[in-house]
Amino acid sequence: MILYERLADDVEQMIRAGTLQPGDRLPSVRALRSRRAVSQATVLQAYALLEARGVIQSRPRSGYFVAPTHRPATVSSSAPPAPSGPPVSVDVSELVFDLLDATRERRALPFGSAFPSPLLFPLQTLATSLARAARSLDPWATVADLPPGSVALRGEIARRYLLTGADVTADDIVVTNGAMEALNLALQSVARPGAVVAIESPAFYGALQAIERLGLRAVEVRTDPVEGIDPDSLREVLDAHPVAACWFMSSFQNPLGATVPDARRPQIVELLAARGVPLIEDDVYAELYFGARAPRPYKCFDRTGLVMHCGGFAKCLAPGWRVGWIAAGRQRRAVQKLKATSSLATNIPAQEGLADYLRRGSAEGHLRRLRRRLASQQEEMLSAIARHFPAGTRATRADGGYFTWVEMPPTVDALELHRRAAAEGIGLSPGPMFSPSRAWRNCVRLNYGHPWDAELRAGIARLGALATELAERGG
Amino acid sequence: MILYERLADDVEQMIRAGTLQPGDRLPSVRALRSRRAVSQATVLQAYALLEARGVIQSRPRSGYFVAPTHRPATVSSSAPPAPSGPPVSVDVSELVFDLLDATRERRALPFGSAFPSPLLFPLQTLATSLARAARSLDPWATVADLPPGSVALRGEIARRYLLTGADVTADDIVVTNGAMEALNLALQSVARPGAVVAIESPAFYGALQAIERLGLRAVEVRTDPVEGIDPDSLREVLDAHPVAACWFMSSFQNPLGATVPDARRPQIVELLAARGVPLIEDDVYAELYFGARAPRPYKCFDRTGLVMHCGGFAKCLAPGWRVGWIAAGRQRRAVQKLKATSSLATNIPAQEGLADYLRRGSAEGHLRRLRRRLASQQEEMLSAIARHFPAGTRATRADGGYFTWVEMPPTVDALELHRRAAAEGIGLSPGPMFSPSRAWRNCVRLNYGHPWDAELRAGIARLGALATELAERGG
Repeated sequence: MILYERLADDVEQMIRAGTLQPGDRLPSVRALRSRRAVSQATVLQAYALLEARGVIQSRPRSGYFVAPTHRPATVSSSAPPAPSGPPVSVDVSELVFDLLDATRERRALPFGSAFPSPLLFPLQTLATSLARAARSLDPWATVADLPPGSVALRGEIARRYLLTGADVTADDIVVTNGAMEALNLALQSVARPGAVVAIESPAFYGALQAIERLGLRAVEVRTDPVEGIDPDSLREVLDAHPVAACWFMSSFQNPLGATVPDARRPQIVELLAARGVPLIEDDVYAELYFGARAPRPYKCFDRTGLVMHCGGFAKCLAPGWRVGWIAAGRQRRAVQKLKATSSLATNIPAQEGLADYLRRGSAEGHLRRLRRRLASQQEEMLSAIARHFPAGTRATRADGGYFTWVEMPPTVDALELHRRAAAEGIGLSPGPMFSPSRAWRNCVRLNYGHPWDAELRAGIARLGALATELAERGG
Repeated sequence: MILYERLADDVEQMIRAGTLQPGDRLPSVRALRSRRAVSQATVLQAYALLEARGVIQSRPRSGYFVAPTHRPATVSSSAPPAPSGPPVSVDVSELVFDLLDATRERRALPFGSAFPSPLLFPLQTLATSLARAARSLDPWATVADLPPGSVALRGEIARRYLLTGADVTADDIVVTNGAMEALNLALQSVARPGAVVAIESPAFYGALQAIERLGLRAVEVRTDPVEGIDPDSLREVLDAHPVAACWFMSSFQNPLGATVPDARRPQIVELLAARGVPLIEDDVYAELYFGARAPRPYKCFDRTGLVMHCGGFAKCLAPGWRVGWIAAGRQRRAVQKLKATSSLATNIPAQEGLADYLRRGSAEGHLRRLRRRLASQQEEMLSAIARHFPAGTRATRADGGYFTWVEMPPTVDALELHRRAAAEGIGLSPGPMFSPSRAWRNCVRLNYGHPWDAELRAGIARLGALATELAERGG
């Protein structure tokens, strides 16, 4: 091992041991050089290596810092039952609603929110498009634009699919009342009451509620906080249970922020296709990537029509408009009928207004700004967590979206933390919301979708202090 | 029997026998006086009596005519199984979708449509309200107006309930994606898969589809074409089956146009309340009454919170906006949760736009004009049916809404009539769409919600000719 590597390892060891905490400044190049009696070049090479490993970060004109998080490498100690366990019926709705109510009623700091700040969206430009669309609406569109939905909007959505390389045309798309309806219709189209649905662990609570409402059973698939669905665990689950469908998020999974590596995506699609299992792809954060381009959804690798890709505009463009869609492959006509009998149609002025907005081409500029802001807010959030949460805390750094999954020391009870934080006007989403077995007791999902400011910073500081109290009391 | 009564009976007998057809002009007063050797006063008294019986009509400066329809007094010969028969699982969706598709694809004359003409609605004024609401939207409303929905809109809806005398406040209301979602949520809140739902016979096909989709079973309650649900039949059904819920329309029932008499409404509500059976009241035509005031919905007589009143704006004000609501009584919180997990929320700009429109008070003028137009279109439609359809045809004259239920001679097959009419670009809704047992083979529902013109008149003439061909061929 050459000199700079050994130096790098030593520094990393100090970080692993907690001597240097996430967010801490590293010794300056000059200080380390003199202390270790090495050349400046060696220190610089060591720090470059640590940066490449993701362990530290350089900040222009400030020096080097311990990266605000380590990517969790292991599953939480509060992990749910092994995937070979039996499918379970789901009963989380009351818990979820109680928690959501608490968050809403208290006008809490929005770390528990499911949404980014509405202030990040071009609401006035959208209003102009909506007004234009409503005024020039063909009255007969109110009768004709029943499912599958507005031709103009489906055309705009199909154009966006083109960019991802997915083979989806306007005819493949059914417009829905937000992605939530799309996901529900997808589930209904392939799973009868009692059927088994494979979900991530932890999973979006909306998936759990839909499964509960429809009388289905859930089986959890091991999910890496960084790389998402574990293919081996998925295979085990498929071997052990008659899985009627999977409900997975490929990118910026809620709540983990996990993104399945590109190379693994076709494998997962093929694994399911070989067994004829439909894959409901919840891709509502697709546009919120921080990298150079969007990850390619599972739908891109769908050769058999078994992938049902669900998207929406609520998180990236038009909150509160409740316009989503589904490209349901084989199930297109079934989904279209379910849509017609569930809620008939989706608001026509909103569909035409969105088509107008997208046609005018200003979406790209908005999305670029939005992604930059979310990435910068992520940085602030993770730094604050690193600074204020108890030792042993790990938070995920997603490649997109606006959630981080924070695993605290095992002695911290997230539901208790929630109660104490709520009493002080601070929201959060406790881990048990995301599991049919109410696992993840020492985890919380935090939202960084809101412009960072002193109040939020103080909120995280306070949350960290509360968590530290619980960690110390429990330990 | 005095002279004028005998004369009246004789004339009525000629009508019943078909000597005088609906729409035919009666003998002039002078002609009848001389033929029967009676006084002019006797003829006038006889005609007045027949008018009072609803058998004939006087038209200013034109004379007397056989009333375009007789109210059907008996149940159709194609009636469904007796209500004591077993509940059936429902399998009509494919038929309904095929029929709806045929109607849509052919740009057919709109007698088969489920909607009134969009040209009857104040779309430009609504667009102005929508634009105003979208521009002045509080961005946080996009997050806060989750179920139960916009405070402003729920307030406006509650104000309208005040007029009916129903004890419904803004807090009791959950805003939905149209009445269709409201009805579906109501059903889900009280009926598990396999449960028995009592429906009208014939029933709205959307109810049949919802029952089918949710895996429920239907039992039909005898329904009078004029007075709606038969309380004796309802009692029999409740005695014979474990009914989990009823789905009934109190006013201008789809497809019959039947309206339950005011005096009978509290009886039906109490009959169900005594047995603890929830009543889902589909009241989407509530505003489309032709009389002096709206009938009071079942909800007005609800003392136990078991009536779930569902309404919407699609048919009376804002087609294509997909805004409805439910006042779900005891099930309010359950419905709110189902809404949140089904489609999260209803388009926020549309909710605020409707609240703006209603607040400005121009709804009443629009509704008065709409009711007058529908009533006049009904007159035209019924006259044309009376003139052109085969002898023995009976059509209902509803007190509101925009449907007439036409019972043709038993030899006319409505599905065959549909096929022939569709081939000539004429839409209609065949009776079997409205029954889980595909009964009502010789009946059709016709829509008169479109401004009457020569094309529609010619369409009914042609439809009548086709029906006459089938009647003669079959007879």
